[in-house]
Amino acid sequence: MKKVGIVMGSDSDLPIVEKAIFTLREYDVPCEVHVLSAHRTPQQAKEFSENARANGFGAIIAAAGKAAHLAGAIAANTTLPVIGLPIKSSTLDGIDALLSTVQMPSGIPVATVAIDGAVNAALLSIQIIAVEDKELAEKLDSSRTEMSKKIIAKDKEISAKYNN
Amino acid sequence: MKKVGIVMGSDSDLPIVEKAIFTLREYDVPCEVHVLSAHRTPQQAKEFSENARANGFGAIIAAAGKAAHLAGAIAANTTLPVIGLPIKSSTLDGIDALLSTVQMPSGIPVATVAIDGAVNAALLSIQIIAVEDKELAEKLDSSRTEMSKKIIAKDKEISAKYNN
Amino acid sequence: MKKVGIVMGSDSDLPIVEKAIFTLREYDVPCEVHVLSAHRTPQQAKEFSENARANGFGAIIAAAGKAAHLAGAIAANTTLPVIGLPIKSSTLDGIDALLSTVQMPSGIPVATVAIDGAVNAALLSIQIIAVEDKELAEKLDSSRTEMSKKIIAKDKEISAKYNN
Amino acid sequence: MKKVGIVMGSDSDLPIVEKAIFTLREYDVPCEVHVLSAHRTPQQAKEFSENARANGFGAIIAAAGKAAHLAGAIAANTTLPVIGLPIKSSTLDGIDALLSTVQMPSGIPVATVAIDGAVNAALLSIQIIAVEDKELAEKLDSSRTEMSKKIIAKDKEISAKYNN
Amino acid sequence: MKKVGIVMGSDSDLPIVEKAIFTLREYDVPCEVHVLSAHRTPQQAKEFSENARANGFGAIIAAAGKAAHLAGAIAANTTLPVIGLPIKSSTLDGIDALLSTVQMPSGIPVATVAIDGAVNAALLSIQIIAVEDKELAEKLDSSRTEMSKKIIAKDKEISAKYNN
Amino acid sequence: MKKVGIVMGSDSDLPIVEKAIFTLREYDVPCEVHVLSAHRTPQQAKEFSENARANGFGAIIAAAGKAAHLAGAIAANTTLPVIGLPIKSSTLDGIDALLSTVQMPSGIPVATVAIDGAVNAALLSIQIIAVEDKELAEKLDSSRTEMSKKIIAKDKEISAKYNN
Amino acid sequence: MKKVGIVMGSDSDLPIVEKAIFTLREYDVPCEVHVLSAHRTPQQAKEFSENARANGFGAIIAAAGKAAHLAGAIAANTTLPVIGLPIKSSTLDGIDALLSTVQMPSGIPVATVAIDGAVNAALLSIQIIAVEDKELAEKLDSSRTEMSKKIIAKDKEISAKYNN
Amino acid sequence: MKKVGIVMGSDSDLPIVEKAIFTLREYDVPCEVHVLSAHRTPQQAKEFSENARANGFGAIIAAAGKAAHLAGAIAANTTLPVIGLPIKSSTLDGIDALLSTVQMPSGIPVATVAIDGAVNAALLSIQIIAVEDKELAEKLDSSRTEMSKKIIAKDKEISAKYNN
Repeated sequence: MKKVGIVMGSDSDLPIVEKAIFTLREYDVPCEVHVLSAHRTPQQAKEFSENARANGFGAIIAAAGKAAHLAGAIAANTTLPVIGLPIKSSTLDGIDALLSTVQMPSGIPVATVAIDGAVNAALLSIQIIAVEDKELAEKLDSSRTEMSKKIIAKDKEISAKYNN
Repeated sequence: MKKVGIVMGSDSDLPIVEKAIFTLREYDVPCEVHVLSAHRTPQQAKEFSENARANGFGAIIAAAGKAAHLAGAIAANTTLPVIGLPIKSSTLDGIDALLSTVQMPSGIPVATVAIDGAVNAALLSIQIIAVEDKELAEKLDSSRTEMSKKIIAKDKEISAKYNN
Repeated sequence: MKKVGIVMGSDSDLPIVEKAIFTLREYDVPCEVHVLSAHRTPQQAKEFSENARANGFGAIIAAAGKAAHLAGAIAANTTLPVIGLPIKSSTLDGIDALLSTVQMPSGIPVATVAIDGAVNAALLSIQIIAVEDKELAEKLDSSRTEMSKKIIAKDKEISAKYNN
Repeated sequence: MKKVGIVMGSDSDLPIVEKAIFTLREYDVPCEVHVLSAHRTPQQAKEFSENARANGFGAIIAAAGKAAHLAGAIAANTTLPVIGLPIKSSTLDGIDALLSTVQMPSGIPVATVAIDGAVNAALLSIQIIAVEDKELAEKLDSSRTEMSKKIIAKDKEISAKYNN
Repeated sequence: MKKVGIVMGSDSDLPIVEKAIFTLREYDVPCEVHVLSAHRTPQQAKEFSENARANGFGAIIAAAGKAAHLAGAIAANTTLPVIGLPIKSSTLDGIDALLSTVQMPSGIPVATVAIDGAVNAALLSIQIIAVEDKELAEKLDSSRTEMSKKIIAKDKEISAKYNN
Repeated sequence: MKKVGIVMGSDSDLPIVEKAIFTLREYDVPCEVHVLSAHRTPQQAKEFSENARANGFGAIIAAAGKAAHLAGAIAANTTLPVIGLPIKSSTLDGIDALLSTVQMPSGIPVATVAIDGAVNAALLSIQIIAVEDKELAEKLDSSRTEMSKKIIAKDKEISAKYNN
Repeated sequence: MKKVGIVMGSDSDLPIVEKAIFTLREYDVPCEVHVLSAHRTPQQAKEFSENARANGFGAIIAAAGKAAHLAGAIAANTTLPVIGLPIKSSTLDGIDALLSTVQMPSGIPVATVAIDGAVNAALLSIQIIAVEDKELAEKLDSSRTEMSKKIIAKDKEISAKYNN
Repeated sequence: MKKVGIVMGSDSDLPIVEKAIFTLREYDVPCEVHVLSAHRTPQQAKEFSENARANGFGAIIAAAGKAAHLAGAIAANTTLPVIGLPIKSSTLDGIDALLSTVQMPSGIPVATVAIDGAVNAALLSIQIIAVEDKELAEKLDSSRTEMSKKIIAKDKEISAKYNN
C-alpha cells in the first residue's frame, strides 16, 4: 500500500497533527511523519517531495500556520496529491494560514481542508489511496456507517431527554 | 481509467467550470459533467454521489458559489475524494463560497482549491487518479516541465527587455 | 398548535441550542429536538424534513457550525420556513457558519439569525406560528412589554447610581 | 390572506427589491410596498410596524444597505416575523448590511436572507403565510418541482454538450 | 454648561461605559446616564433624543454591541452630535458593532470611535462642548500636556532600562 | 461663526471631499479647504492643526485613504473635534482606511464617519457648531424635515406604482 | 553600488511591477528583473536567491498574488533583505496576497509593503542601499522635498479654488 | 556599526518588543529603545526620526497597535528604512494594526512584518545593516544554519517517535 507523508512546519503544530497520525493508524494506512519547513529547511522539504513518489508515497499532508507556504512548497516539487492543513496560530484565527494554503496559482493545486482539520486531512489521504484499494474503500464506508450510528444514538438520547 | 465527475450547482458556473473540463481533456482523462444542486435537485445529487464509485469515478469536482454546499452534499454520500471548487459570485468576492466549502466538519473532508481555481481542481483530480497510473503521473511531470520552460522563456524575454 | 422542530448538527451545539428549547417552553409552544447531520446522517435529515409539514411542524430551527449546511439541507427538502442558527466554533468566530447559512441560492431561503442567537431563533419560530394564532401573538406582545419594563427598571437603577 | 409588507430604506434599493415584489405576484400573495427609513422617517416606520398586524400583514420584508437598521427598527415595533434583506452598496460588498441586519440582540429577531437575496426574502414570507394555508403550500411545493425540472433539463443539455 | 448624555443598549455594556462616565467626571462635565434600547425600549430612546437639545444636552454618547443600532436610532431623532461607541460582544470581535455604527446613510451622521473606546467617546463629547468653552478647551490642552509628560517619563524609564 | 477645516491627504480624494464642501455651503457654514499629508507634508499638517483653534476653526474634517493617518495626525496637534472621513481606494474597499481612522488609541479621539461619507462628515461638523448656535440648529432641523418629506414623497410615488 | 533584484511570480504582475522598475531608474539604482515562480520554477528561484548576495544584490523585491509565496521562498534562501509586494488578483482584493506575504514565521522576515505598492517597494530597496550611501540618501531626501513641494502646490491650487 | 532604533507607541507593547531587543543583543547590534507616540508625543517622535540618520541609526523599528500610525509617522520624517511591527490589541486580532501599518501611500514606505512579529522585525533590521557588513551577514547565515539544524533535530526526534 502507498504511504501517506505527514509533514509539519514546526513541532508546535504537533497537537493538531497528531490527530491525523492517529486517524491513519486507525485505518492501518502506513504513514511517515516529518518536521520540514518551507523557509527554515527548504532543502529538506524539496528533497522529501521530489523523491516522494519514488519512495512509495501516495499523498502528502502538509500542516502549517501563519503564511503557510509548506503545502505549496511541497506541491511545487511533486505531482502527488498534496493536502494542505492550515493551522490556527496566535493571531487572525487561522484565516492567514487558510488563504496562504488554498489560494494557489494555476498549475500547482493544494487540496485544502478546514483550519485545524487534521482528521479530515487524514481521511482525504485515505480516500485518495482507496481509489484503487477496494478493501480500504470498504473500511471508509463502514466507518461512515459507524459515524451515522453514533449520531443516530445521540439523536435518540437527546430526543428522549427533551421530547416528551 | 477511472473517470472524473464534474458537477456544478448552476449552469451560470459553466464559464469557470469549462476550464476544468478542458484541462481534463488535455490529459485524456475521461470526465462526466452534470448540473446538480444540493438544494434544488438534492435527490439527483444524492443518487449521483452514492453510485459514483460503482459507476467508475475516481474523484468528483463540485463547483458552487455563495453558501456553496454542493461539495459537502456530494461528500456526504460517497467516500471518493471530493474536490470543492468555490465560485465567486456577485457579492463577498467568493469568501462565502470558500468558507462554506472548506470548513467541513470532522468525518467528511472536501479537498478545496482556490476561488475560481478550476484548472487546479482538474489537476488535483488527475493527480489523484495518477497515484496508481504511472503513465498519467509522467504526463503530469512533463506538463510541469513545460510550465517551467514557459516561465523560463518569459523570464528571458522580460530580463532582455528590462536588464541591460 | 403547530410544533417547532429543533435540529442540530452535533450534540456539541446543545449548550447554545438549549436556550431555544427553553424559550419555546416558556411560550408553551411544542417542540421536537433532534441531532441530525447534513453530512453524517443525510438520510435522516432528508426524511425528517420531507415529512415535517405532514408531521405537524410549522417551522424548523437548524443549528450548525463551521461549513453549516444543515439549515440548507433541511430547507432543500421542505417548504416550511427554516430558521438557520449559525454556531460559533473553535476558529473564525462563527463567520464561516453565518455565511454558510445565510448566503443561500435563489429558491431555497433560510431565515438566518445572529451567531449563537438561539433565543431569537426560538422567538422567530414562535412569531411564525403566531401569525395565525392570536393568543400566541398576545403572549409575544406581553413579553415585549415585560422586556421593556426590565430595561426601564435597569435604566432607573443605573440613572440613580450615576446621575445626581 | 395575510399581506406581505415590503419596505425599503431608500428608493435606490428598488432594482433589487422589485424581484421580491414580482415573486410575491407570481404566487398571488398580496403585498404592500413602502419607502420607509429607520433614520430619515422613523415616525412613519414606527407607525407602519406598530399597526402592521392589525392592518392584515403576516410578514414584513425590510431591505436596507450599509448600517442597515431598517429591519431592526421594524422588528422593534411589531411581533410579526420581520425578514431582513441586506443590500450591497458602494463599499464593503454588503458585509456591513449583512452584519447590521443579522446580529440582532436577544429578544428582537430578524430573519435575514442573503445579501441582495430579494427572491428568497419573498419566498420566505410566502412560506410563513403558507404555514396555515394549504393551497399556498402546495404552490410552493410545485414551484420546487418546477425548479428541479429546470435544473434537470439544464443537466441534460450540458451533459449532452460535454459528455460523449 | 451643556450636559453629555450617555446611553447604553444594555447594562452589560456598563463596564466599558463606566470609563466614559469617569472621564467626564474628571473634566467636571455634567452627564446623564441611561439604559435605552433601540429595539427593546424604542419609545424611551425616541423621547430621550427628541428632547435632548431642549433638555440641555450638547452631545450624546450611545454605546451598543452586535447590530448596534442605538447610536443611529438616537441620531434619527436629534440633530445634536451623536457619538457611537461600538461594544465588542461574544462573537466577531466587535466588527459587527463597528460597521453597524459607522456605516450610516447620508443625512444622519454618527461620530464613531474605536471598538470599546469609551474614554475617547467621552473626550470627543468634551471637545464638542469645549468648542465654545475656553476654560474647558484649556483643560483639554493641559491634559494633553500631562499625557505627553507621562509618555516622556515612560520613555526615560524604558530608555534607562534597555539603553546603556 | 466658527469655520470648518476640510483637509485631504491627496487631491485624488477631491471628488468625494467636494460633497462635504458643497454641504457646508448649503448651510452657509464657512470652511477652508487644504491638501495636507500626514506623511508627505507633516510639518504643514502640524502647523495647521496647532493653530486651528486660534484661527477660528470649530471642527476639522480629515479625509484620507489606505493607511489613513491624516485624521489622527491632525488630532494629535489640536483638541478641537476632528472628523475622520475614510476614503475607499483601489484595494480592500476602504476597510483599511476605516480601521486606520477609527481605531485611535485612548486620549486622541477621531470622530469617524462612513467610508466615503463626505456629506455626513460635513453634517457632523455643522452639528458640532450648532451646539451653541440656535439658528444653525434650526436649519439642521428643517433640513431633516425636508429630507423626511422627500422620503415620504418617494413612498407615495412607489406605493402608487406597486400597490393597487 | 549594490543592485536591486526585482522578481515577479508571473508576467501578469508586470503592469504593477513596472512602477518599481521605473522608480529605481529615477534614482539610478541598478536593478535586475526576473520572472521566477516559487511553485513553477522553484529551482530557479532558489538559485537566484542563494547567489544574490555574491552576485552583488543589496535587496530583492518579490511580487506575487494570491497565495503569494514568492517573497518567502526567496527569503528562505538568502539573508539579504527581501521586500514582499503583494499583488491584487481577481478575487479577495489582495488580502490573500498580503497575508501570505507578511505573516512569515519567526526567523525568515519579509519586509512587506502595501497591496500593489510597487513604488514603495522600490523606495524601500533604495532606502536600504542608501544606509551606507550618503549621496543616495541625499537624493531620497531631496525627492521628499520635491514631493512636499508638489503637495504644497496642490494645496495652493485647491485652496484658491474653494476658499474665498 | 549603525544602530537600530526601536520605538513603541506605548509601554504596554514592551512584552512583544522585548523579543526584538533580545534578538539584536544576540547579534551584538547596538540598539536604542524609546517610547514615542505618534499621537501623544508627536513632537518627540518627529525629533527622533528627523535626527535618526545623523545620530547613527541605520534602521528604525516602530511597534504600535490599533490605528498604528507610529511607523508611518516615523517614516514621514526620515528616509532611513522604517520597519513596522503591528501589535495585536484587545479587539480585531491585530488586523487593524496590520492594515494601518502596511497600507502606506506612495512615497513613504514602511517595511511591515507579521502581527507581533518582533523577532523578524529585529532580524530585518540586522539584514539591512548587514548589506554592507560582511561579518554580520555571516552571522545571519550561520544563525540560519543553526535554525536548520534545530529543525532537522526536531524532525529526527519526531520521526523516531511516530515512524517505526
